[in-house]
Amino acid sequence: MPPLDPGSDSVPEPLLIDRNPLPASIGGDLRRQLTFVVEVDRMKAVLRQSPVAATERRENDAEHSWHLALMALVLAEHADEPVDRGRVVELLVLHDLVEVYAGDVSVHDVAARAAQAVREVQAADRLYGLLPDEQGRRLRAAWEEFEAGATPEARFARGLDRLQPLLLSWMAGGGRWPDEGVTADSIRGLLGAIGASSASLGAAAEELIAESDRRGYFRG
Amino acid sequence: MPPLDPGSDSVPEPLLIDRNPLPASIGGDLRRQLTFVVEVDRMKAVLRQSPVAATERRENDAEHSWHLALMALVLAEHADEPVDRGRVVELLVLHDLVEVYAGDVSVHDVAARAAQAVREVQAADRLYGLLPDEQGRRLRAAWEEFEAGATPEARFARGLDRLQPLLLSWMAGGGRWPDEGVTADSIRGLLGAIGASSASLGAAAEELIAESDRRGYFRG
Repeated sequence: MPPLDPGSDSVPEPLLIDRNPLPASIGGDLRRQLTFVVEVDRMKAVLRQSPVAATERRENDAEHSWHLALMALVLAEHADEPVDRGRVVELLVLHDLVEVYAGDVSVHDVAARAAQAVREVQAADRLYGLLPDEQGRRLRAAWEEFEAGATPEARFARGLDRLQPLLLSWMAGGGRWPDEGVTADSIRGLLGAIGASSASLGAAAEELIAESDRRGYFRG
Repeated sequence: MPPLDPGSDSVPEPLLIDRNPLPASIGGDLRRQLTFVVEVDRMKAVLRQSPVAATERRENDAEHSWHLALMALVLAEHADEPVDRGRVVELLVLHDLVEVYAGDVSVHDVAARAAQAVREVQAADRLYGLLPDEQGRRLRAAWEEFEAGATPEARFARGLDRLQPLLLSWMAGGGRWPDEGVTADSIRGLLGAIGASSASLGAAAEELIAESDRRGYFRG
């Protein structure tokens, strides 16, 4: 599906479920929920910049979201503020859903990120509108909590969201950093979110950046 | 990585992190935890039988696990027994991790599943042994809880684990069902886990199976 064009009057693409509608006997809230569950399958087709460590290709949003949820289960003790681990996991499972329509924009592409914010709000209107109303509002509020870093859980989740691609780029000897124009200094600015929620993870991130710099991973 | 060979004395493959070890300055529990976080990247390379709805390829374990976690957030109200939604999500994030070494065996391949159980225990020994001891025991216990269907959360999680591939196969007009020799009756037997934890999801699954049967999705 092409990304939404903010400001255009173009007719949205059909939903995935429209290719093979559910039997009419499945109705009510469950019909809306299963429509949403099928629609978010698009996350598996949204490619990110990060290289997968286990094989030779770029990562997609579904894989990324799962990897982050797993990291929250393993690393929650490193949060400086007490966090509800289950809530961190929930925020991470949901945090990139709007990209099914808005697409992924690299964290390093500062110029594109302002326009992206507008597109993501439009995507949220469409996507969360598929759900029963109260549930759609609740899940959208979780995404907004994450985006705003409004709670200890959201801040820790945002730190993990920066640490995970750093680990994958480390495993790839820098990966796409040179293509994206990433430098040790630019990545230090972006990765401040890690240290802001966890001193120990922030220190580990700095070790990875410093060693990457010594090895020339930013020059390619 | 080739699957483990139960009963062999073969030397295990190196860990992913051995390709580019973490700086020595990252030590202690965090070093073990990051080793685990990198190792489970292998989930992105474990292919399942289910077709992705959004694009033309088979699904991998990381995508599947994320999709299930999202389904738990959306569908928890349908559990017949009260469930801790966050715990269901945790179980689902973890439930297939042993497949990084043991590989995926189709739920429809009954003959292969007995041997698979042995392989999965060996895989769990190796994988959870990477973590700090107490944490490894705790996460392994969550996997065992899921496998045994020992709690309402595990039973509901197991139902979702059956419902998700049914939805994907529906979207693909049967997908690989004919290749795997799946019939309406055989799938009804396997999908009893859905109705056992949720009458409403079980009824929806039966609607999908009955309509698939009418359309010939099992014949291909």
